[in-house]
Amino acid sequence: MIARTLYLENNILKILDQRLLPSEIYYIDCITKEDTFKCIKDMAIRGAPAIGVAAGYGMYLAACEKEFKNISEIKKYIEKAGKYLISARPTAVNLFWGVDRILNVVKRYTGFNIIELKLRIKVEANKMYEEDITINKKIGELGAKLFKKKSTILTHCNAGALATAGWGTALGVIRSAYKQKKIKMVYVDETRPYLQGARLTSWELLQEKIPCVLITDNMAGHFISEGKIDAVIVGADRIASNGDTANKIGTYSLAVLCNYNKIPFYIAAPVSTFDTKISDGKKIKIEFRSSDEVVLINKKHVAPVNMKALHPAFDVTPHELITAIITEKGVIKKPSVKTIKDVLIKRSSYL
Amino acid sequence: MIARTLYLENNILKILDQRLLPSEIYYIDCITKEDTFKCIKDMAIRGAPAIGVAAGYGMYLAACEKEFKNISEIKKYIEKAGKYLISARPTAVNLFWGVDRILNVVKRYTGFNIIELKLRIKVEANKMYEEDITINKKIGELGAKLFKKKSTILTHCNAGALATAGWGTALGVIRSAYKQKKIKMVYVDETRPYLQGARLTSWELLQEKIPCVLITDNMAGHFISEGKIDAVIVGADRIASNGDTANKIGTYSLAVLCNYNKIPFYIAAPVSTFDTKISDGKKIKIEFRSSDEVVLINKKHVAPVNMKALHPAFDVTPHELITAIITEKGVIKKPSVKTIKDVLIKRSSYL
Repeated sequence: MIARTLYLENNILKILDQRLLPSEIYYIDCITKEDTFKCIKDMAIRGAPAIGVAAGYGMYLAACEKEFKNISEIKKYIEKAGKYLISARPTAVNLFWGVDRILNVVKRYTGFNIIELKLRIKVEANKMYEEDITINKKIGELGAKLFKKKSTILTHCNAGALATAGWGTALGVIRSAYKQKKIKMVYVDETRPYLQGARLTSWELLQEKIPCVLITDNMAGHFISEGKIDAVIVGADRIASNGDTANKIGTYSLAVLCNYNKIPFYIAAPVSTFDTKISDGKKIKIEFRSSDEVVLINKKHVAPVNMKALHPAFDVTPHELITAIITEKGVIKKPSVKTIKDVLIKRSSYL
Repeated sequence: MIARTLYLENNILKILDQRLLPSEIYYIDCITKEDTFKCIKDMAIRGAPAIGVAAGYGMYLAACEKEFKNISEIKKYIEKAGKYLISARPTAVNLFWGVDRILNVVKRYTGFNIIELKLRIKVEANKMYEEDITINKKIGELGAKLFKKKSTILTHCNAGALATAGWGTALGVIRSAYKQKKIKMVYVDETRPYLQGARLTSWELLQEKIPCVLITDNMAGHFISEGKIDAVIVGADRIASNGDTANKIGTYSLAVLCNYNKIPFYIAAPVSTFDTKISDGKKIKIEFRSSDEVVLINKKHVAPVNMKALHPAFDVTPHELITAIITEKGVIKKPSVKTIKDVLIKRSSYL
């Protein structure tokens, strides 16, 4: 069974509380936009695509949470709900995108039927959900072609179903390859400090009985050097025009280790991850998060209480270390301004 | 103040309980060989040189723990104590060495004075203690010369005072360089899974107010790539004839990252770490430890309970990735069979 990150059922948005994983599987019932806001803000749901889709549904919940006298009133109400939802995590680009898609539906609607407008919003939110899964499955299909039979693959962080509406990006490729019997083993980096690999990726893989084993991040190099790993695949948070890729801290080291040991290093990400306004990785500002996540594990200090720590959440992998970027529009081998542009300008025929 | 790992006071061997660090500073009183055995076996004390010295003192405690009728009785008793102490951690080479040094004193003693023999044993144990510190300080002195002013140094695991009788190897070099005002900042790898960096190295550095900051192991590459780190220095568990070095898991990755980013990667270790019976790193068997240390942190699961994990305790760094090995007999630049032999054959003039 593939984990369902979120879904709408009887006008209730069910959100899997990822903070409780892997020890508990619990879905939060969201009935109002406030419930949705809280889930996003408090990280019950995380992962850029997942948050975007959750915001879309949050807009729908806003449209359903009270009675409206006329079309103007509901339109204003939804617009306000959009501003509110965006404030849950102001830096998440996908949150803006999710809210905007619904706002566009509202703006385009010129009728006066409140029920019809609500229905259109619901259809759009569902479409965003379905599109995300379709995109991931396409990435999975294209990526799986790159793997040989009986591959042992290493992944970092969680770029799985839990980070998206379903299927996943990097983990989606692994999933697709597993269905084609190409996966012998998946090595899972625990991904300190937030342990997304240990908590989330392990859980997803075990759910589907994909053979997997957990390692600490500093063991990856050892297994790569011993020839145990055939390829490394990870997701991406932001990709510059030249292919330089920001992703979870630790990604850069894996790319260097792959390069030194001559094994492929893949990025799997939807085209929406490309930020063509940015020329290269040097322009990507690295977000520093709370050092508490480094010095505290399970709320207990693992270092002296007065020890300072640093917590860059991401690092940047230069394009020359990336064997290929797998997108829903095609595989970009040897990423560069030109090879990326060639793929991005393609029309999405499958959506 | 430098942490005292262990010391003899009024015929009591005081051992700092490293399992309680950094939250508590507590010295265990060892009065018998059994007390010493327990400290070594249960990892209250760890680090190859520290264990060797503890074993030496444990032998002395054995000589003092009962009344003996004649010289033959005490000699037999101490011999038996040696076998017992060695069984605390049967794979630790330094434990054998520590016990053997005392046994040699016992064998060489041809008199009949029990008090004199005890004194000779005590003198030898103290000598081992002092020698270890002398060796470390020499390594520190030679290593510090390699650092430029205002250096930012990264280290992994704990090759500090706590792993030795005092001063430390890799951390000893940092200590010596700091005294010479060459250290601007020390980046401390937390060193999963056992967190020796977070718990022990952080604690040692804070004790002496050496500027330091904690990072997770997967952040090292990011800071190296950003030009924040001037050099990496670590200890060693075993060095083959050609310079290939076994050390705490994660060391290899650091060496590859240094190589890619063209910064020096140093090993600091006493000549006793060289295993000249081994031609190269491929012959070093990597010990796998309990996977519990990966899946459990502070006794709580960080991964699904049925998730398997791997725990290689060490990795091997090939000599071509090592800028220099710093020993008490000299700095071995570009380690190779020849350059190593040239240094090892030198007589230790300073001891």
